[in-house]
Amino acid sequence: MRYDLINNNQLLASYRNSVTSVHFPVGTPTLVAAKDELQTGLEGLLGRKILIQTNLSNASIVVGTVKSSNIIASLGMDQQLTKVGEEGFVILTTKKDQKNVIAIAANSDVGVLHGVFHFLRLLQTGQTIQNLSITSAPKIKYRLLDHWDNLNRSVERGYAGFSIWNWHTLPDYIDQRYIDYARANASIGINGAVVTNVNANATILTKEYLEKVAALANVFRTYGIKIYLTGRFSAPIEIGKLKTADPLNEDVKRWWKNKIDEIYTYIPDFGGFLIKANSEGQPGPQDYKRSHADGANMFAEALAPHGGIVMWRAFVYSNESPEDRLKQAYAEFKPLDGKFNDNVAVQVKNGPLDFQPREPFSPLFGAMTKTPLFMEYQLTQEYLGFSTHLVFMAPLFKEVLDADTYAKGKGSTVAQVIDGSLYGHSLSGMAGVANIGNDIDWTGHPFGQANWYTLGRLSWDHDLSSAQIANEWIRQTFGNDKGLVDTVAKMMLSSREAVVNYMTPLGLHHIMGYGHHYGPAPWFDKASRADWNPVYFHRADSIGIGFDRTSKGTNYLSQYAPELRKKYEDISTCPEDLLLWFHHVSWNHKMKSGRTLWEELCYKYYSGVDSVRRMQKEWNSLEKQVDKQRFQQIKMLLAIQEKEAVWWRNSCLLYFQTFSKMPIPPNYEKPDHTLEYYKNLNFPFAPGNGK
Amino acid sequence: MRYDLINNNQLLASYRNSVTSVHFPVGTPTLVAAKDELQTGLEGLLGRKILIQTNLSNASIVVGTVKSSNIIASLGMDQQLTKVGEEGFVILTTKKDQKNVIAIAANSDVGVLHGVFHFLRLLQTGQTIQNLSITSAPKIKYRLLDHWDNLNRSVERGYAGFSIWNWHTLPDYIDQRYIDYARANASIGINGAVVTNVNANATILTKEYLEKVAALANVFRTYGIKIYLTGRFSAPIEIGKLKTADPLNEDVKRWWKNKIDEIYTYIPDFGGFLIKANSEGQPGPQDYKRSHADGANMFAEALAPHGGIVMWRAFVYSNESPEDRLKQAYAEFKPLDGKFNDNVAVQVKNGPLDFQPREPFSPLFGAMTKTPLFMEYQLTQEYLGFSTHLVFMAPLFKEVLDADTYAKGKGSTVAQVIDGSLYGHSLSGMAGVANIGNDIDWTGHPFGQANWYTLGRLSWDHDLSSAQIANEWIRQTFGNDKGLVDTVAKMMLSSREAVVNYMTPLGLHHIMGYGHHYGPAPWFDKASRADWNPVYFHRADSIGIGFDRTSKGTNYLSQYAPELRKKYEDISTCPEDLLLWFHHVSWNHKMKSGRTLWEELCYKYYSGVDSVRRMQKEWNSLEKQVDKQRFQQIKMLLAIQEKEAVWWRNSCLLYFQTFSKMPIPPNYEKPDHTLEYYKNLNFPFAPGNGK
Repeated sequence: MRYDLINNNQLLASYRNSVTSVHFPVGTPTLVAAKDELQTGLEGLLGRKILIQTNLSNASIVVGTVKSSNIIASLGMDQQLTKVGEEGFVILTTKKDQKNVIAIAANSDVGVLHGVFHFLRLLQTGQTIQNLSITSAPKIKYRLLDHWDNLNRSVERGYAGFSIWNWHTLPDYIDQRYIDYARANASIGINGAVVTNVNANATILTKEYLEKVAALANVFRTYGIKIYLTGRFSAPIEIGKLKTADPLNEDVKRWWKNKIDEIYTYIPDFGGFLIKANSEGQPGPQDYKRSHADGANMFAEALAPHGGIVMWRAFVYSNESPEDRLKQAYAEFKPLDGKFNDNVAVQVKNGPLDFQPREPFSPLFGAMTKTPLFMEYQLTQEYLGFSTHLVFMAPLFKEVLDADTYAKGKGSTVAQVIDGSLYGHSLSGMAGVANIGNDIDWTGHPFGQANWYTLGRLSWDHDLSSAQIANEWIRQTFGNDKGLVDTVAKMMLSSREAVVNYMTPLGLHHIMGYGHHYGPAPWFDKASRADWNPVYFHRADSIGIGFDRTSKGTNYLSQYAPELRKKYEDISTCPEDLLLWFHHVSWNHKMKSGRTLWEELCYKYYSGVDSVRRMQKEWNSLEKQVDKQRFQQIKMLLAIQEKEAVWWRNSCLLYFQTFSKMPIPPNYEKPDHTLEYYKNLNFPFAPGNGK
Repeated sequence: MRYDLINNNQLLASYRNSVTSVHFPVGTPTLVAAKDELQTGLEGLLGRKILIQTNLSNASIVVGTVKSSNIIASLGMDQQLTKVGEEGFVILTTKKDQKNVIAIAANSDVGVLHGVFHFLRLLQTGQTIQNLSITSAPKIKYRLLDHWDNLNRSVERGYAGFSIWNWHTLPDYIDQRYIDYARANASIGINGAVVTNVNANATILTKEYLEKVAALANVFRTYGIKIYLTGRFSAPIEIGKLKTADPLNEDVKRWWKNKIDEIYTYIPDFGGFLIKANSEGQPGPQDYKRSHADGANMFAEALAPHGGIVMWRAFVYSNESPEDRLKQAYAEFKPLDGKFNDNVAVQVKNGPLDFQPREPFSPLFGAMTKTPLFMEYQLTQEYLGFSTHLVFMAPLFKEVLDADTYAKGKGSTVAQVIDGSLYGHSLSGMAGVANIGNDIDWTGHPFGQANWYTLGRLSWDHDLSSAQIANEWIRQTFGNDKGLVDTVAKMMLSSREAVVNYMTPLGLHHIMGYGHHYGPAPWFDKASRADWNPVYFHRADSIGIGFDRTSKGTNYLSQYAPELRKKYEDISTCPEDLLLWFHHVSWNHKMKSGRTLWEELCYKYYSGVDSVRRMQKEWNSLEKQVDKQRFQQIKMLLAIQEKEAVWWRNSCLLYFQTFSKMPIPPNYEKPDHTLEYYKNLNFPFAPGNGK
């Protein structure tokens, strides 16, 4: 939303020539918001006053729907408009009464708003606005941020301060941040916000809190954003004074129906519920020997008359089962395929475990044919260095979207599952667990904003490449200087592989600190359940390291399509970047590079640190091109990232060395602390651990 | 720190004539900070580039110390400079080589910084800068903010978000807010910050955390601000692995000595400790049958060689004693007078209870002759409507400072106790419990900033009047338009009496909600100890209301000087604004107004609400003179204040009515809810309650 004056004089002159006036219909709050945004944006970018005119002159921007604007109606854009649906837009260079105009048109006011933001983005990113002919519609219907925000304003796994929702002063006080949040989301096409934590609190469903939620919904509505809540499954007991929360009990069903009807009296366009049930201690239908489908359908029935949906999370693993944790979600949900009501989607994390730096895609993608699956990504960097590491996530997201499930033969990508095209579902969704807090810069790390941006852009159009998204974001954030854009893009695009290398190379996973998840702790083995312990996941011993999930091991691989099974089963065809995810591999195993596994592990950890140091050099080269405050800020953050990358590298290698008994190759810098030193580090107040 | 262009053209022209260049010595980080501030400030205010010159020209500002600046040294200002001490400054219009100059001079670099801020304030508040002859030195030596900030970033009794200290990213990441915080404090002369909660955590004393504290100290040092910590009395056990924390035990003394020596290796100018001991469950010397003096002196001995001080809080009341809670601090501390080491001050809350809207001054003021007493005010509005009520505290602070203790005869004001002049103490101090959080505007309510400002200005010069302080603050915050200044001043200056009236008129106290202290709960009687219950304090019954603290009651009055005792003992001479503080008064008691007590109580509660409604009207009249965002923000906050004032009024009167059995006079608007409704309100997530 930085509308700084364009500093390329030629471009500025050309833009000024093409935009001399703006025609905007009077109308709804959404149209007013779009008009204000266009005016503010153009005045900032072009450095001149922009008046909203009534007479059409040359070089006009004409904005609106067929319904709200006679000029738009007269331009004959029906054919283009049929392509863009309810939320999309058309931007067209055309003529009206012999005058050159740029039309920004849509079928709805929200579509107009999206079009205005897109037009501003063209200017912000230095693109031509001659001969425009753009039609754009979202590929995915539900594009959401999931906030893990508690009612006391702590944010579970939040590293950017505390919740931006100040429940105490709502509904009477509307913080400017709520408006700016909605503007930012609308600018990238996000159309829904789940404002409460999946580890839910029933209090949000009381009258007092629904009034607060309604006040937020009123702000969001203008920007085309619907509000969603998380549903505490035991709410009928906790606030409804019932004796049970059994989803087949008539009193319980009636309680939820009444509650949901009540919600719609406060919020007529309420989006629905996101539910975490029977997962990590949360209550759920299995407490009453009912299935996830029974639970989901109870909500679905009550929501259906109002047009609301249920997003039922597939992130479940049993407290009792000795089964490989990674197999459990599939085992639970695959048999339920076809049993969910029409307005239920099952929301699946990108990988089978938990937002690790690299995971294979979840085997549920492709496996459930009758159930719409929503994608859940994590923008907040629970496992990616909190908010002090620069990690651009587009490559991670794209790796999953581009993955081939082979579900309907070769070319059945995860993206096709998610956008509904593979099995013809009309419900489609992509959610990101928000990385937003009340820090002044929203995300703690300025580059965290790029991940929020990515979620919006990819959920609108998953064909965009990581490089395209980075390029757009850099230009809007730091300006259009080519050298700067290239350098920052290089940093961003290499950052995800860097974090994989200095944290969990070669398919390692879940070796972080216990509870708070800060820093490395591959040695940790004190958690109450086996599958919360790093040692459960890396299985290092004198012979080798890695988790055998082939047919000779837990056979987790059986949950994938035969083509993938075959490829991963064989250690010689298994991609090395997931080798230890699927195989227990001997320390002397020869890698493609010619190095032994141990040497390769050392190589990867050291190259992860080297990548960070390269990013530091690249950033330092930009001192003159970035304002002093942001330059210094990011420089300090990169220094922390370097320090922590070294910490990961040293402590992991020193620990794994106690099994491999092999030396760190002599050409590498020596660890500057002992393993004992690292084991004794303590973080009693690490952030993001609040309930 | 708003350096907006001066919009009075005549004044602007005159300032521009008087300030054409600036001469600044090169030098220390503090001088660089002062130079940057002067340059930024002048460029903003005068709307032109200000260059730092080497040649003296006409209309120069010449800045520095005798030591750092040859020009200053040549101006013969020795006489003035001897008056302003280490932190004060001289601002003088004079001539040098036939050129008109304004000299900003001091004996130290920090004094220069203070002088620069004062000079900028002259411009910001539209004062003349002709023929300046200002000498200014602080009347009080230690001018402090006490942060009740926990290491998990919750702030006890904080209503402006969460702690600005991001301990997790310290010491490597220096948030711009730390710098801005230091600038803001320096601009009003605050020279110390206790950065941790008095309900202390020993972790802050570990090596890892001391490195973080040192990073903050490095930022603050440049701005003349020392850092202080709170000392957890049981730290030798908790992190020192000793078996005892007995202050007379040699191992314990040695542990603290070593710990304090260690602190000074990290922070050579560490200020010292603020300690809450044997109070509300905190550990302390009495756990070992030692006195508060024994405890304080242990710290004092270890701090003395480094120049550090101990601030020992007098806020103690026993868990076991059935004595009137208000008498206990005096009973504990008065006998210890003379037993504290030289570098110990006892820090006393302004009143004997706990920061209520109105209290008499604490009887310790004047009673302790051999011990320096520091004043503790509370800026955060624990009992004054949190951060949604506009309450300007200068009148409250001044009421206490101006109060006559009669300790050395008539005219022995609390101010003279605090500034050390009454008993000739060289230690003198005033602290405010900070109202600062990570909200974008620092204090949640924009007018909260005025209280922070007041603390700084009053601790520098307690002779300033409330009106002067309000005037200065308004001009710097909203501009110099006379109508606006007058209107906002009226709102501010009446706001304290308003909150007294709608919350606790006529000397009522401690009738707020239990635990979180949000809203009224005069009916509450379920707390584990009697003196945490509102009913303990108001003592309403069928006969009347109020707490008899005269000689016929608890005789708390005996702790005051005879002159005061006499005045308050007699119901006919007792000031009515503290009537129920000292007397149990019958519902039919005739007040000076001619009304009965019950009628007067109704009158006061209703007039409190009326005052808020008047403030709303006054604010609304300023719509054209205040920027849209701040106008709307404060309008919303005033609406909350009005709603909550009505809530206080209605629920208190309906409750007290159950005792008085008298009607609310017919000319008043009727309560719109029942007493039961108010009693059933519930605030599970009220802010500021975090530990």
